Amino acid sequence: MAAILLDVDGVLHVSGEPIPGAVDAVRQLRAAGHRVRFVTNSTTMSRKQLGDVLRGMGFVLDDDELQTTGSVAARVLKGKRVLALTMPGILDDLEGLELIGMNADAVLVGGCDEGEEPGRVFSYLNLNRAFLELEAGAELYCLHKNRWWQTVDGPKLDAGAFVAGLEYASGAEATVLGKPSPEYFAAALEAIDADPELAWMVGDDIEGDVVGAQRHGMRTVLVRTGKFRPDEVEQSGVVPDGIISSVAQLPDWLESNP
Amino acid sequence: MAAILLDVDGVLHVSGEPIPGAVDAVRQLRAAGHRVRFVTNSTTMSRKQLGDVLRGMGFVLDDDELQTTGSVAARVLKGKRVLALTMPGILDDLEGLELIGMNADAVLVGGCDEGEEPGRVFSYLNLNRAFLELEAGAELYCLHKNRWWQTVDGPKLDAGAFVAGLEYASGAEATVLGKPSPEYFAAALEAIDADPELAWMVGDDIEGDVVGAQRHGMRTVLVRTGKFRPDEVEQSGVVPDGIISSVAQLPDWLESNP
Repeated sequence: MAAILLDVDGVLHVSGEPIPGAVDAVRQLRAAGHRVRFVTNSTTMSRKQLGDVLRGMGFVLDDDELQTTGSVAARVLKGKRVLALTMPGILDDLEGLELIGMNADAVLVGGCDEGEEPGRVFSYLNLNRAFLELEAGAELYCLHKNRWWQTVDGPKLDAGAFVAGLEYASGAEATVLGKPSPEYFAAALEAIDADPELAWMVGDDIEGDVVGAQRHGMRTVLVRTGKFRPDEVEQSGVVPDGIISSVAQLPDWLESNP
Repeated sequence: MAAILLDVDGVLHVSGEPIPGAVDAVRQLRAAGHRVRFVTNSTTMSRKQLGDVLRGMGFVLDDDELQTTGSVAARVLKGKRVLALTMPGILDDLEGLELIGMNADAVLVGGCDEGEEPGRVFSYLNLNRAFLELEAGAELYCLHKNRWWQTVDGPKLDAGAFVAGLEYASGAEATVLGKPSPEYFAAALEAIDADPELAWMVGDDIEGDVVGAQRHGMRTVLVRTGKFRPDEVEQSGVVPDGIISSVAQLPDWLESNP
């Protein structure tokens, strides 16, 4: 039986609509005895919030089967004093960290929000505070370093710009905690006690999911849903172990490719 | 007779206090027949505002003898549609530019403010707007790309961080308009019809003033006031043509070093 990391957005659902057959596929994977873990780069919701959303779509899962970037931050930064520039939604996942406003060991930069006030965590006041902490010796971490993200209104500037700005001003180099970082995959595999060689990463993102997991020694399956673009895959030169129409095919595919 | 570019902050005054003998020195330089131009990287005041401040200290000068970064921007970006993320103070200097909120040819990033609301031009909304213009093909310009600046409360995050962030997100490379850019020195020399080889740059900043002017083929004098630090000069390996205690010595020094 295998260990399977399932990306969430674009693999299990797209914009809140479950992929046809996805709910059933997850049930079949469990019934076949595979260990399953849900791995997302979302920076706006806590595990509990995202778990509720997925259960609302019909998926059967416990919150602690979900790995968010916030939960990885909690693991990597455990015991440290952290200045967190993150969305309020993920604060629940940062348990065990001492969140403070000064004399931090680490600065943690989160993501942007699609809400009414996007980017309010990236006010000058907050960024200046982060800069001063970095100057005083704090380490720089970020949940991801994305340049932009797609919204219904078009592309929007994402947190990567603010991470890059803090790197430039302070001379520090940020450690990325979300996919495709090794820390992220290591945390997910450790949680289900799996070796990379015997584990599958299933995702829609050739860079974040497939390349990241390959670099970590895992096998990979790319789905043709979500942000999958045939041209991008061809141009990337990256070859996943499998490419399937959607996660609905995964149980059958795994049976033929054990 | 020579052409002389005089830096303002740290050379003529420090935090609003004129350097002893500076007012007299400027008068002597003029009396000796030298062409003088005042060159500053300030991003918070227009020429008129800064001229008033300097006249208030006793300096005799016309506004149009002052070169601000805003006035260089107006020269370089003449006729272009510009999205300006700048302090309101310098808008007067941006005459001739069509300042607009979308469909820009160029994005111009200014400096931070020491006022009550520092960095308010760098709101997420403004930065996202700039990002979208860059994505649509606008060119990126900045008044300077400083990492931080010194205030009475200590260092503060400066505009360079936001320039670097926009560069990262858009893939564009910013053209710096202030010192030490060649455009800046070229504009100052053109205004007084001087060749670089026969012109002096007098400043307190080994990088922005001395290195920049040397690269532009000018001769340089470093003053031991303002941000002058002996260690930095030694470590930099940069050798100005002269190092003098303060601008008060400049008229005599020039007579012995024509």
